Amino acid sequence: MRQNNIKAIIDRLSLGKISPEQALQKLSNLSFEDLGFAKLDHHRSIRTGVPEVIFAPGKTDEQILKIFERMSKSGSDVLITRTNKTIYDKIRRKFKGVNFNDVARIIYKTKAAKSPHAKKTIAVVTAGTSDISVAEEASVTIEVFGGKIERVYDVGVAGIHRLMAHQDKLKNARVIIVVAGMEGALASVVGGLVRAPVIAVPTSVGYGASFQGLAALLAMLNSCAPGVTVVNIDNGFGAAMAALKIIGER
Amino acid sequence: MRQNNIKAIIDRLSLGKISPEQALQKLSNLSFEDLGFAKLDHHRSIRTGVPEVIFAPGKTDEQILKIFERMSKSGSDVLITRTNKTIYDKIRRKFKGVNFNDVARIIYKTKAAKSPHAKKTIAVVTAGTSDISVAEEASVTIEVFGGKIERVYDVGVAGIHRLMAHQDKLKNARVIIVVAGMEGALASVVGGLVRAPVIAVPTSVGYGASFQGLAALLAMLNSCAPGVTVVNIDNGFGAAMAALKIIGER
Amino acid sequence: MRQNNIKAIIDRLSLGKISPEQALQKLSNLSFEDLGFAKLDHHRSIRTGVPEVIFAPGKTDEQILKIFERMSKSGSDVLITRTNKTIYDKIRRKFKGVNFNDVARIIYKTKAAKSPHAKKTIAVVTAGTSDISVAEEASVTIEVFGGKIERVYDVGVAGIHRLMAHQDKLKNARVIIVVAGMEGALASVVGGLVRAPVIAVPTSVGYGASFQGLAALLAMLNSCAPGVTVVNIDNGFGAAMAALKIIGER
Amino acid sequence: MRQNNIKAIIDRLSLGKISPEQALQKLSNLSFEDLGFAKLDHHRSIRTGVPEVIFAPGKTDEQILKIFERMSKSGSDVLITRTNKTIYDKIRRKFKGVNFNDVARIIYKTKAAKSPHAKKTIAVVTAGTSDISVAEEASVTIEVFGGKIERVYDVGVAGIHRLMAHQDKLKNARVIIVVAGMEGALASVVGGLVRAPVIAVPTSVGYGASFQGLAALLAMLNSCAPGVTVVNIDNGFGAAMAALKIIGER
Amino acid sequence: MRQNNIKAIIDRLSLGKISPEQALQKLSNLSFEDLGFAKLDHHRSIRTGVPEVIFAPGKTDEQILKIFERMSKSGSDVLITRTNKTIYDKIRRKFKGVNFNDVARIIYKTKAAKSPHAKKTIAVVTAGTSDISVAEEASVTIEVFGGKIERVYDVGVAGIHRLMAHQDKLKNARVIIVVAGMEGALASVVGGLVRAPVIAVPTSVGYGASFQGLAALLAMLNSCAPGVTVVNIDNGFGAAMAALKIIGER
Amino acid sequence: MRQNNIKAIIDRLSLGKISPEQALQKLSNLSFEDLGFAKLDHHRSIRTGVPEVIFAPGKTDEQILKIFERMSKSGSDVLITRTNKTIYDKIRRKFKGVNFNDVARIIYKTKAAKSPHAKKTIAVVTAGTSDISVAEEASVTIEVFGGKIERVYDVGVAGIHRLMAHQDKLKNARVIIVVAGMEGALASVVGGLVRAPVIAVPTSVGYGASFQGLAALLAMLNSCAPGVTVVNIDNGFGAAMAALKIIGER
Amino acid sequence: MRQNNIKAIIDRLSLGKISPEQALQKLSNLSFEDLGFAKLDHHRSIRTGVPEVIFAPGKTDEQILKIFERMSKSGSDVLITRTNKTIYDKIRRKFKGVNFNDVARIIYKTKAAKSPHAKKTIAVVTAGTSDISVAEEASVTIEVFGGKIERVYDVGVAGIHRLMAHQDKLKNARVIIVVAGMEGALASVVGGLVRAPVIAVPTSVGYGASFQGLAALLAMLNSCAPGVTVVNIDNGFGAAMAALKIIGER
Amino acid sequence: MRQNNIKAIIDRLSLGKISPEQALQKLSNLSFEDLGFAKLDHHRSIRTGVPEVIFAPGKTDEQILKIFERMSKSGSDVLITRTNKTIYDKIRRKFKGVNFNDVARIIYKTKAAKSPHAKKTIAVVTAGTSDISVAEEASVTIEVFGGKIERVYDVGVAGIHRLMAHQDKLKNARVIIVVAGMEGALASVVGGLVRAPVIAVPTSVGYGASFQGLAALLAMLNSCAPGVTVVNIDNGFGAAMAALKIIGER
Repeated sequence: MRQNNIKAIIDRLSLGKISPEQALQKLSNLSFEDLGFAKLDHHRSIRTGVPEVIFAPGKTDEQILKIFERMSKSGSDVLITRTNKTIYDKIRRKFKGVNFNDVARIIYKTKAAKSPHAKKTIAVVTAGTSDISVAEEASVTIEVFGGKIERVYDVGVAGIHRLMAHQDKLKNARVIIVVAGMEGALASVVGGLVRAPVIAVPTSVGYGASFQGLAALLAMLNSCAPGVTVVNIDNGFGAAMAALKIIGER
Repeated sequence: MRQNNIKAIIDRLSLGKISPEQALQKLSNLSFEDLGFAKLDHHRSIRTGVPEVIFAPGKTDEQILKIFERMSKSGSDVLITRTNKTIYDKIRRKFKGVNFNDVARIIYKTKAAKSPHAKKTIAVVTAGTSDISVAEEASVTIEVFGGKIERVYDVGVAGIHRLMAHQDKLKNARVIIVVAGMEGALASVVGGLVRAPVIAVPTSVGYGASFQGLAALLAMLNSCAPGVTVVNIDNGFGAAMAALKIIGER
Repeated sequence: MRQNNIKAIIDRLSLGKISPEQALQKLSNLSFEDLGFAKLDHHRSIRTGVPEVIFAPGKTDEQILKIFERMSKSGSDVLITRTNKTIYDKIRRKFKGVNFNDVARIIYKTKAAKSPHAKKTIAVVTAGTSDISVAEEASVTIEVFGGKIERVYDVGVAGIHRLMAHQDKLKNARVIIVVAGMEGALASVVGGLVRAPVIAVPTSVGYGASFQGLAALLAMLNSCAPGVTVVNIDNGFGAAMAALKIIGER
Repeated sequence: MRQNNIKAIIDRLSLGKISPEQALQKLSNLSFEDLGFAKLDHHRSIRTGVPEVIFAPGKTDEQILKIFERMSKSGSDVLITRTNKTIYDKIRRKFKGVNFNDVARIIYKTKAAKSPHAKKTIAVVTAGTSDISVAEEASVTIEVFGGKIERVYDVGVAGIHRLMAHQDKLKNARVIIVVAGMEGALASVVGGLVRAPVIAVPTSVGYGASFQGLAALLAMLNSCAPGVTVVNIDNGFGAAMAALKIIGER
Repeated sequence: MRQNNIKAIIDRLSLGKISPEQALQKLSNLSFEDLGFAKLDHHRSIRTGVPEVIFAPGKTDEQILKIFERMSKSGSDVLITRTNKTIYDKIRRKFKGVNFNDVARIIYKTKAAKSPHAKKTIAVVTAGTSDISVAEEASVTIEVFGGKIERVYDVGVAGIHRLMAHQDKLKNARVIIVVAGMEGALASVVGGLVRAPVIAVPTSVGYGASFQGLAALLAMLNSCAPGVTVVNIDNGFGAAMAALKIIGER
Repeated sequence: MRQNNIKAIIDRLSLGKISPEQALQKLSNLSFEDLGFAKLDHHRSIRTGVPEVIFAPGKTDEQILKIFERMSKSGSDVLITRTNKTIYDKIRRKFKGVNFNDVARIIYKTKAAKSPHAKKTIAVVTAGTSDISVAEEASVTIEVFGGKIERVYDVGVAGIHRLMAHQDKLKNARVIIVVAGMEGALASVVGGLVRAPVIAVPTSVGYGASFQGLAALLAMLNSCAPGVTVVNIDNGFGAAMAALKIIGER
Repeated sequence: MRQNNIKAIIDRLSLGKISPEQALQKLSNLSFEDLGFAKLDHHRSIRTGVPEVIFAPGKTDEQILKIFERMSKSGSDVLITRTNKTIYDKIRRKFKGVNFNDVARIIYKTKAAKSPHAKKTIAVVTAGTSDISVAEEASVTIEVFGGKIERVYDVGVAGIHRLMAHQDKLKNARVIIVVAGMEGALASVVGGLVRAPVIAVPTSVGYGASFQGLAALLAMLNSCAPGVTVVNIDNGFGAAMAALKIIGER
Repeated sequence: MRQNNIKAIIDRLSLGKISPEQALQKLSNLSFEDLGFAKLDHHRSIRTGVPEVIFAPGKTDEQILKIFERMSKSGSDVLITRTNKTIYDKIRRKFKGVNFNDVARIIYKTKAAKSPHAKKTIAVVTAGTSDISVAEEASVTIEVFGGKIERVYDVGVAGIHRLMAHQDKLKNARVIIVVAGMEGALASVVGGLVRAPVIAVPTSVGYGASFQGLAALLAMLNSCAPGVTVVNIDNGFGAAMAALKIIGER
């Protein structure tokens, strides 16, 4: 859509229907809407395959509500991450069709059409029970955007038999997200078992020399299994976005 | 193949043609060959979609030659990374059909069949001229395994116009590998422009507070553009493997 | 004034009107006033072009009140940073003409004369909505001292089009302050677009491997765009001071 | 110039003299020239007030020669930093009017017109004798681009009297660059003495817990003297660029 | 005393008045008393010139009370650091002659005899008002053990004139303790002005890249002024102990 | 038991009593039980000599209760670490024979049979009183599994005589666990005194440059006394497990 | 022996055969011999079960020769680690029965009596071929002191099948030393498979974000498999010593 | 002397014998001499009790020679640290009475008058043989300035008996310098044994997780023995200066 708009503007300019100044003005206004404190990029979804998402920390409840309202009005899907029930309660008093997943800490409102790629499974694997919150951030995000998830939780390498018993699930996945804290070894082991690309998410689970996820992050970056890429500590959302981009047809 | 072999062994076991002890023995030997100092995993390619690759640093020339010989005999494609002309000269005295790319520091011998996915372009983008060696490690690796590369080099963010002029190349790519040192900002800018998954490779280019690539690594992990994943510093090979896995059909 | 005073003292000494001991005594007392726990440097403004500013953290409310009182009595402009409404309420019960900006967390009392340099715009740019508090610390500080601000907020590099639409504002600025957390890439992109000096302020916005702003700090220090200088994490005040010094005539 | 070119292209487009496709093509080609391994940004000088500079490390001598040749042909001033006599000898065999400063490790070729701002002095101050190489990188760069330098070397804070004796030089400067390793305290002391903006350059001078300049870098970032901004460790060139931008009229 | 006791035991052993087993037993019991969770070293004062001191964090109020009781009974001076009013109130309900200094966060009970070295002044210098709590931990500790303090507070290097006005106080001191956060530059400046040994105490005052005192710590360790030694971040007590040992006659 | 089960399955497969598919199924199910959010590894005790242990942080009370219930039903010993009285109260309302140690922060339920190795003493040594909580985590864990502990607390190196008086206890131990924060020197001193293997546990006791136990951790890893191995900061449980494995007969 | 000597001295003292002064003298001299630059601790072997070992780095060849000579004369076993052929050649010109292992970088001279514990196997496992040098430092050290080694090299987790095929060797070992660089995951996987204590040795194998072994070190410290303890990066010798202490009977 | 000079100038000014401008000029020139690249502070010795010392790294041989010449002419004692035989040979060709100590890496020329404090012993203690070079930098520096050294080398804590045998030497010292790498534990043990102030010098001896002396540095900063202060890694000279200041009478 935006591509077409840009072409239209340049065409109209070349036809002399608008002045160069008007053209520049239109091109600038095309892609975002200015709320003063935030500039919504309604068309990012078309450009990058990723909808505008509200990362809640550091924003006031009022800012979140205002951004949500505008996005909602423009007809976009909306996703709020790292949020909580307080904000959800404020939102649902004003808007309908809004959902909240408390483990994943996600509020979302979507038109819920199934993705055409839903048959391509994305496996989400965790090392331990404590990694589940981050894993659910990834899983729920993917489901909100129409993806299909296979959850394989609590299969850390200290009991490698648990993982081995799920090899089939891993082998059927088009992408695998591995969520692990502590020593982060699970990403390497999974990476050595499968053909699919592996996205590793270090978590801040651990204590002492885990340094809030640094140990797992470094381990994953140094994975001896090629094809493993890494996102930021606890960044389940980022892993979900990367996975969705991977399964997306062009 | 290996899958079939395993099935064959279990079938023969269930038919009583081999003893349980023999079955265990066969299963163990199936997947690798022991050189004493190295265990070759001939079937890893089938299991994970990635051939056995020789990472040269820390190995003696003799070890490399010996591993090369065995892999070559078994009919595998062979790829040696982070290597040099000295080793290449030793190898080509003994073997035919071996190639060397000195910018990429890669020795390879392949059966060269074009990948069925070669029409899916992988763009490799660098911020500066000094990042090219790492970028070529990625590009050559992908080409060796039949992938198709679009090189977009020296388009760092301090001259954003250079990048903008190549937007089409980026938009046509199925995967984009962004190679950048110093502040690593290029990954975020590219990630904000395209639908394709972006694999960021921090390089050790820079000085002082770049801390041998740490600055770029952290910047890429914190990218505000969702869908960016990261590999280890200077790890062009790893990025190539991840890209190949992404374009691979299952 | 202080320059004159010093000259006066030395002159009086050379004329024999005061003894050497008295001269030393006077020179020492000239520039600050001792409150026991704090030594006010009333003349720093003249010496360095920067008024005495109260950095609130680590000081008790009583200490802040006492310092404010003395500075106020001496006729200085007063600025309290990183403060809050509780302290403001205590102050305004005792003093008139005191203002508070809660986003910027600044209390100030100024004689409000417009700076002669007010026509030289200082642009303050943020990557995201969460960086605004730090940006406002810079913007309000500059405005308090008579500077003129152009706010360009929420134009991070993941949507480079938003930034491009504001190029004119950037090109008209005499100095640009770029406030960004996460990967801090905005400083490099802006630095590559403009002639003006760029002061980069990393913020502690982010999580995981942002390490409370370290990622943005390192990225900015490694900027590939020359002419970018950096202040401490979240140090909006420091950036404001540097910008004021840059626009100041001598 | 470039501004005019862009206007010309848009004007011609609006007049129908060129097609939209041609306009896009021209706009893209306008600003850089592609050497395959490097994209020269001939017009960056006009856009950002900073000429294209060749940072030598990580480039082969041949790449440097080729970039030098193209920049030279286009009539740009050329500056090569972190270089050495070997490269200089290769260059001067082919080109005339090229100079080399071995302390500053800079090769340059300029049209040498005095800057209109040459009367605004930039003071370059060092803590010790070992910081001089970095300081000269800054000083020579500024002089090459027509600036006027006041050198105040070896006035570190362990002998504060040495610094005090040069207060006048500092007070006459429009900008002050402070170059210091070890504990980097000089930046704070100078920042407390002057009205001018201070650009601090940490150097890797020191040993042990200096961690190659990290100690000085952190100290400078935490300077208690407002108006101090910081560039990367050993980045004399960056400090020079920032200083030139500060004295530049618009 | 302890020296005598040891000699007495060995003498009695050599005279056959006690058995070797008894000798070992006595030697072991001589120097400490076992509370189960803590072993009091009543004679450490004699051995090292430093009384047993209770570092409160990590101990329960009950443990502190019990240790206090035993030490008090044995006639030792007692000093509790990093403590608070709650504990003080519990103690003074049971014991007499106990004092509390809330800025220094110290509870103490001493026999208050003036030290024979009280005429040797120890100067305690701070960079800012926020460093005073740590400085008072040092000052009060020294005063409790009979030392004489000269307080020179809030004389940071951004206003070097304030420090210069107190040169005499510094020059009269036998030892100088410099307490500074942020960039920690004060230690170097003081170290360059005086003959006395300087003990530098980095404080966690600051934010961002001060990394809770790391910046000041590194700066002080890298001081270009020889004769500066450093204690742990915020360790006013440690600096006091070192200063007392320095002035102590042997 | 598990070993026998596996053999039984393979035997039955080879006898044709079960199909290969059934064999795989049984082998997978053998070792763990799936609670959805957690996969219990009932037989890990047999495989590794270590019972399934519940690490409480990051788990909800409900998850802990559910895991406890299943493990309890399966007849396993159960141990919950880093827990608190609230959880204990919830558990003992439902289950009998459950114990809680609040210093060690451990809940446990065991069949309490004395270990055959109980005569091999494990000494647990602490540097200070503040290290006792971590030490008790180790001591109680060992006692729960039938080991015999010799506690030697508060014998840090600043009073080396206290340690010397306990040399006999150390020399009688089969394994020694040394728990120390701050500078962690105790591990080296103990390691130089005894024949037994020493397991060092750094604690987060300290402040400033202890960096939450990093200083002690690094010191212990660099111990000049050979035979010292290290576990994670504050990991009393890990040290206990390693000690139990060392005394275990095979 | 030493124990007896000490008892003898104390007995003679209690019998009056020697004076207390003589007793102290004898006790001091008992345990070491002074070479001026080094103090040999001939009896450490008896006290701690570990012979005096010469760590070569930082010592001149002459110092090494002199220490070797004295240790050799006293009849001790001698082991030099991190050494090279140059030193070996100097030593064997003077002494007989000296051996050198160049992969392990160890020179040794032993009386070669088989240890009574030689039947207790110590398995040494490596992740890759590049880890073998460190592994051999451990293996050769153990063999020199009479231990029995089972080498299981190149079984890293990216090909978990290779490890699985060697489970028997691991299960027969009394202690397992796991040597791994990069992400260090092997320690956790092995720790989850066996009953024996696991000593993990991180190696500096890797690049970029491995930070010379830091990634592997942190991963191993955070191992989710209880019973894993860790030694310093590349410290094969330390692991060997700990393993020997574990198998030693008391 | 300098004190007198300053008084003389101020007196002459007050007597009208010189103008204020001349007074300022004289005061500035008084304390140092400008070599262009270095400003000699001839009077620092009088002001701070520390002679001007040449730290060789980062200076060219020519610079060192020139500085040496001027200092030598002015009659100062001269000390060059971190130097080598090459520079020594250049110097002694031109100057007489110059000495070189190659273990300490120090060149010096002194008037050799015995210090009045020479009877106050400074003990220099090292943990190992590899720490001796740093220890000798301290010892030789002290001896050059007339101090008296007691060397106690190679008494690390892994053989605590070696240290115990030298307790008398430690107890007789007025100041103790403890030089140790690896875990740096020696400083705490010595600090717990003596009344004298202890100056700890971490060395870069060690490998892996010693991080070039960081482990020892942190350990020493966290010493549980009060009265221990720390200098930079390998900074034997700094420790010597601090020790000399401590024994100096005022």
